[in-house]
This record gives sequence, C-alpha cells and structure tokens, in this order.
Amino acid sequence: MHQASVHRVVIVGGGFGGLQAAQALRRANVDITLLDRRNFHLFQPLTYQVATGALSPGEIAYPLRAIFERARNIRVLMAEVTDFDLEARELHLRSVDGVPAPASISYDTLIVSGGSRYSFFGHDEWAEFAEEVKSLESALLARSRILSAFEAAEMEPDPQRREAWLTFAVVGGGPTGVEMAGQIAELARDTLRQDFRSIDPRTGRILLIEATDRVLTSFPPSLSGKAQRSLERLGVTPLLGRTVIGVDADGVTVDDGGGRPERIPTRTVIWAAGVTASPLAAKLAERSGAELDRAGRVTVEPDLTLVGHPEVFALGDMIRVRGSDGVVRVLPGVAPAAMQEGRYAAKAVRARLRGEGPPPFRYRDKGNLATIGRAAAVADIRGLRLSGFIAWVTWLLVHLFYLVGFQNRIVVFIRWSFSFATHGRGARLITEEDGIAPRHLAGGEPRP
Amino acid sequence: MHQASVHRVVIVGGGFGGLQAAQALRRANVDITLLDRRNFHLFQPLTYQVATGALSPGEIAYPLRAIFERARNIRVLMAEVTDFDLEARELHLRSVDGVPAPASISYDTLIVSGGSRYSFFGHDEWAEFAEEVKSLESALLARSRILSAFEAAEMEPDPQRREAWLTFAVVGGGPTGVEMAGQIAELARDTLRQDFRSIDPRTGRILLIEATDRVLTSFPPSLSGKAQRSLERLGVTPLLGRTVIGVDADGVTVDDGGGRPERIPTRTVIWAAGVTASPLAAKLAERSGAELDRAGRVTVEPDLTLVGHPEVFALGDMIRVRGSDGVVRVLPGVAPAAMQEGRYAAKAVRARLRGEGPPPFRYRDKGNLATIGRAAAVADIRGLRLSGFIAWVTWLLVHLFYLVGFQNRIVVFIRWSFSFATHGRGARLITEEDGIAPRHLAGGEPRP
Repeated sequence: MHQASVHRVVIVGGGFGGLQAAQALRRANVDITLLDRRNFHLFQPLTYQVATGALSPGEIAYPLRAIFERARNIRVLMAEVTDFDLEARELHLRSVDGVPAPASISYDTLIVSGGSRYSFFGHDEWAEFAEEVKSLESALLARSRILSAFEAAEMEPDPQRREAWLTFAVVGGGPTGVEMAGQIAELARDTLRQDFRSIDPRTGRILLIEATDRVLTSFPPSLSGKAQRSLERLGVTPLLGRTVIGVDADGVTVDDGGGRPERIPTRTVIWAAGVTASPLAAKLAERSGAELDRAGRVTVEPDLTLVGHPEVFALGDMIRVRGSDGVVRVLPGVAPAAMQEGRYAAKAVRARLRGEGPPPFRYRDKGNLATIGRAAAVADIRGLRLSGFIAWVTWLLVHLFYLVGFQNRIVVFIRWSFSFATHGRGARLITEEDGIAPRHLAGGEPRP
Repeated sequence: MHQASVHRVVIVGGGFGGLQAAQALRRANVDITLLDRRNFHLFQPLTYQVATGALSPGEIAYPLRAIFERARNIRVLMAEVTDFDLEARELHLRSVDGVPAPASISYDTLIVSGGSRYSFFGHDEWAEFAEEVKSLESALLARSRILSAFEAAEMEPDPQRREAWLTFAVVGGGPTGVEMAGQIAELARDTLRQDFRSIDPRTGRILLIEATDRVLTSFPPSLSGKAQRSLERLGVTPLLGRTVIGVDADGVTVDDGGGRPERIPTRTVIWAAGVTASPLAAKLAERSGAELDRAGRVTVEPDLTLVGHPEVFALGDMIRVRGSDGVVRVLPGVAPAAMQEGRYAAKAVRARLRGEGPPPFRYRDKGNLATIGRAAAVADIRGLRLSGFIAWVTWLLVHLFYLVGFQNRIVVFIRWSFSFATHGRGARLITEEDGIAPRHLAGGEPRP
C-alpha cells in the first residue's frame, strides 16, 4: 500500500488525553503524529510533590519517544501549534527550544488535547508574585521559592519581616491547593523541624484561601468537612469565603466577604485557582464557529468533534460537551475524563475507517480522590465515601498504577515509603531562579 | 559556658572537603557555620549521569540542612563570600537567590573549600557555545542540548546540517570527558535506538578531543589504552593530540597537531577541559601574600594553612600543598583528596583546642577510578590495575557507598539496575533552556 494513502492522524498534546488516543491507535492502520511542546509526558497529579521536594522531575515525567519507541506508526514531533486551517486540513507550527519544525503539517483526522492552566482572574500582573503548580518548570520555581522563604526567615532579624517569610498563602481550595497547603504544612512541621537554628519552622502559617464556603467543592460537603479538619490538624488555616483582590511582592489582599479588604503579609504565594483553557480552544472556536465559554473552552458535539468538522476531535480540559439532549456540560477537569475522551476518539477513528459511526461519548465517573497529607485523603467513588488512611492508601495505589514507566513506579514507591517512615523529603533543592547559574559562577564554584 | 567563648569555625563550601570537615567537628566543642551558595551538597562524580538523563538531580544532590539537622552546633547559611579580612578574622558576604545574608561573619578558625571549575583556556567567549558538566544547572543544560540535538536532527531535511546535529564534540579526555563521551555514545546506540523515524541515532558521531596523546592521563598508559579501546567499541572517536582553537555556534576548530586548523561542524559541544580554581583562592593569596599558580590555586603550608595565618585552612581543588621538603605539589582533583583534607583540618582544629599541634597533612592515594560505559571502567588502586567488568563493579560500589543519603543509594541502585537491564534512561527530559516556560505558556499548556 502506498504510504500517502494511509490515513493520517495528528494528535496535539502529550497529556493524558493525547497519550491515550495514541496508545489506542498504535495497532491501527493509521499514520500518527504526536505533537507536543515538550519531549515528555508529565504525570500532572503529582506535580505538587515536586513543588515540595518529595519527588524529582524525572520521577513523574517520562519521554514521549520512550513511550512509543516500539510503535512504528507513531512519530513524535516537538513543536508548538500556532493555528489551524480546518478547510485545508493543516496545522501551522512553530519551532520550540531551537528544534526545527516544519511550517505546517496535514491531517486526515485531528485530535486536539491542549489542556488548561490556572488563570489569575484576569490579573496577569499577579503572576509575577505568585507561583503556579502545573508545569514541571513552575513546580521547580515553587519549590525554590518555598524553600528559600525558610532560608530567608532564618536570616531575617526583623520579627515582622520574618513572619512574612514564614507565611505561605495558597490560593484555591481545589485538590491542588489542598495538596499544596498540606505538603507545605508537613514540610514546616515535620521535614524541616530540626533544620534551622534561629527559627522554628513549626511557627510557620500556612493559609488556604478559598472564595467559596468550603474546600474541595467537587466533593460532597461531608468529605469537604473531613478534608478541612485534616488540614487544620496538619496546621493549615483555611480562609473560606475570601476572594483575592490583590497580590504583590509583600503580600496578598483579600475581600473578607463583607467587601472590606484584609491584608495578609506574605512573601510566598502559591496559585491554584481559576481555570482557563489552552488558547488552542479559542483558535478552534474561531475557525469552526463553535461556541467558546468564558473560561475559554470550546463546545464540541456529542462525539467530541467540532461542529461541521467531524474529522476534528477536541478533548480534555479545553472543551465543553454538548449532550445528546442538547445540554452543554463541563466534565470534571481530571485525568480519567481526558483519558476516556482520548480512548473514545481513537475508537471513533477506527470505527470510521470501517465505515461505521461511533455512539456518542459517555463519561463514566470513576470517582474523585484528593490527598491532604500523610495518611490523610478523601475519596468519593460512585457514592462510596472514604476518608483518612484507607482513602490515602486508595489514592496511593491509583496514582502508582497510572504512573507511566515501571521503573518510575518503583522509585516513587520507595521515595514515598521513606518519606512516610522518616518524614524526610530528599529533593528539596533550591536551584537558581532562572535554572542557570551565571556562567562565570557555574561549576558549583565558587562554593559558596 | 558563655556562648561567645565557644570557638567559632566557619566552613566555606559544602562540597566534599567542607562536608567532611563539618562532619568531623559535629561532636567537638565548637560553633560551626557552614556557608554555601546552594542549599545542597552535590555528589559531583555523578553529575555527568544527570547530563545524559540516567539520573535525576534529586538523586545526586542532598540538602545540607538535612545532613546536619541533628548536629546542633552546626548552622547552615546560604550566602556567597565576596572577600576575606584575615586581620579582623571576618568574611564579607553577599546574598544569593534573594535570601538575606549578614554583611559579614567572624571566625576563630576558617576552613575554605571553594573547589574549581573548567576553564575555557582564557576564551570565555566559547562558553556561550559549549556546555560544562560540573554544577547541577550546567548538567541540566547539557542534557537539554544533547537531547534537543537529536530532536533537531530528526526534523532537519538538509543532510549536512543533520550531520552537524548528530555530531557531538566532547572536549577534554579526563574522567568527565571520557564518561560524557561514553554516555552520549550509549544514548545514541542503545537508549534512543528506536526513538526516531527519520534518523538513525546510531549514525551519530561522538568525538572526544584531547590535547595530549592519550585519554585519562592520570592513569598508567596501559589503562589509558584499554579505556580508549572501550570508548572505540562504544562508538566514540578519540581525536588525540588536537588542541581546540575555536568554538562557535556551528562547530569546533582544532589544531591538528601540525599547526593546521581543522574544522568540525557540530551543534553540541561539551566542555570538560582545563581547570581553574575558585576565585576565592586568589582572594586568599592576595590577602595573605601566599603564592598563586597559573590555574588560580593558592599555595598552603604542610598543615594546609595559609602562610602567616595558622587559623585559616584551605582545601580541595583550589590549593597546592607545600610539602615538609619544601616542594609544592598539586594533589589529584578527586573527591577522596578533598575529603582527607577536610578530615585533617577538623583534626587539626581539635588538636589545637587541646593545645597540641597536628602533624603535617599526608595524602593517601586511594586509587583512581573512571567509568567508560556499560560494564566498562578502569581502576588503578595502589598499583592494582583493573579494567572491564570488575573495574566497573568496583566503580559502582564505591560510588553507591559514598553517595549521601541512604534513600538516594537505593533509588540510584534501582535506576542503574534498570538502565543496565533495559538500556533505558528515564530522565531524558528537555526542559526550557532557561528552566522557565514563558509565564503565559506555563502550565504545560498550551501543549503544544
């Protein structure tokens, strides 16, 4: 069969959705190109553990080429998508990190899984003072900032300024915010307990700022309450019903709920609130005429395709799905949803190659898990509500199971066992803010 | 006893020498301040494995505070030394990474272990085009460059440019150069063998450029020969008797030995040649009147102290030692030498507190080890010359034994076992050149 006649599938994004789509098509008679700005798949649910030094980057990221090295019909391409030409069935590309990329690439079927990021409620100027925990790079920056804050507190003679260094504000009471707050509290109470001579890290204040009246709003209220009590036991102070109205170098300003501004002096702000879809969603909406919501999500049809473009699938955090009943829904922004959508798109492609049409996509809720800290988690699995140690073990097993790379599973399991036994965190390294030591100072020298 | 009357020891540098000095004084009746620009000890002999994706940063670096958390007489301080006031017995400090530092710190005994870095033979302009493998940050940059070169080759339609992307020039035939060349060769031949669709990574050329007529000049010639043959079997081409006379974005120019320039087109240059001591050595020489050699090393007395300043010790790669016979010698720039010097300085401090004088420092040669690749190494242990598998096992056990942190030993052992069994390298991640994704692109999105 001539090469050009093979059906060409282009998958944009090597996250959970894109990865599953590619996996499910590796034995199909199609040519696949998997595009990503990075050369690795990131196991995003554990990124927060990198941000607190519990795990190293290489333990939760895995090279895309390694995942697909034996799938000869899959080609991995490092590039950034700048635009879609839906009529010509072409993507426009831009080179990343100096790696040359073709200007465009053609497809017969396109699967776009661009993900989402945190939004700063329209205040991009806050980004300078608040660290996200989503990409690997942002997690490393957050790690350096958190650890440097303790170092700075140790050196700070002024009591007020010392207190600001020892105050950590986590914005957003969703799973990432809860996990970050819990981890920073454990860092302060356990891991770093004996590390300093002038300060007692246990006096650190860890604030969890949430606009609604409870944490983990995607869980039933009873589990939110249990999560909140677990957080409080760890030493986290939840500030509920507070909206952030300002972030600067010296602190956070919140609306106390009654319209009065309240000032919180802190040098470390971790941002895990608001969600905005990848800009690729807006591009798809613009080119196809599909709806776009305020969070930048594009609406797709019941079979996850763009209106008028059955050859274009969109997945994951960047979409809303129109049900067969006509109602548009937002599915949970969790890995299992993206994975199901990825597998569905692959199945649809294979069905069409056989001349069949696939049934509409149906999301199956696998449950909801969030960890708070050492031996504490909450789980809501199809109505079964778990908390405490058993939820934590469930969380642990699920995450180990889905972690890509057999070797990484073992290494992460060992790291966790040690952390559990010793309260230690080995990877708490402060690397240069920009990741590069000034060239003339590099070489670990002059050390100091 | 009043706090101020306790003998104050300041140790500069958390490398092998400084770490051993602090360890050996943790039970002495002294107050210790350990200063470093970084908050971690780096196990430098394995840095090259980070540069090729075999290990992650957290696996070879360990927080200094964690090492000394139970040593209540040791205070760790993140700061950079800018100058010494030997008369006032004070160090001048500068803040690092935004962590405040006192302007100065006083000592009764000072131990300086500032290390060394690679020099570019006086051509600092080459640094832009060549990656060192010494600090953790430089290793991560080297890793991104090496992996990106394969990515670029995969995308490059022009055969000549593709060949330049697939050419890797390692400069310097010492242990680091040999190890890097061997690792890049294994990456190309084994790890990445199936990863690409347009190129065959096995066609990559790995050049090891060395100015003298053999590799590993610190070993006996017979072992150099064995190492060279091992390198050749791995696919490395040693270019001996070649001096680098130019480095730019498109290649390296070498003197072919007869004065004729030879041009080697390559996009990836790894630099592991020339050694220059930490600038702290020059400062110490300037302030004390001690000799400084061309490589920037300060000469110390037989007891490792500065001439006229018995209270100031200098250790490691930044010194030459005057023997009891008056002859000035350079000790091997290896971890065991720095460690012995650190322990000696600590012993000297304790002896003096008892009113005794220590005997002169005597270096005990523990042998010399270098690894070339999978199951290949050379070892010269007090005249016992090993090569091949047995030398490699020796190398492996010695490095695991000295690696700080019990947990890291196990994790590294597992990574190595897997790499050995599967030829894989899990941590081959390309992170953004500057370690930061542009803020608006962060969050792993838009992916791509």
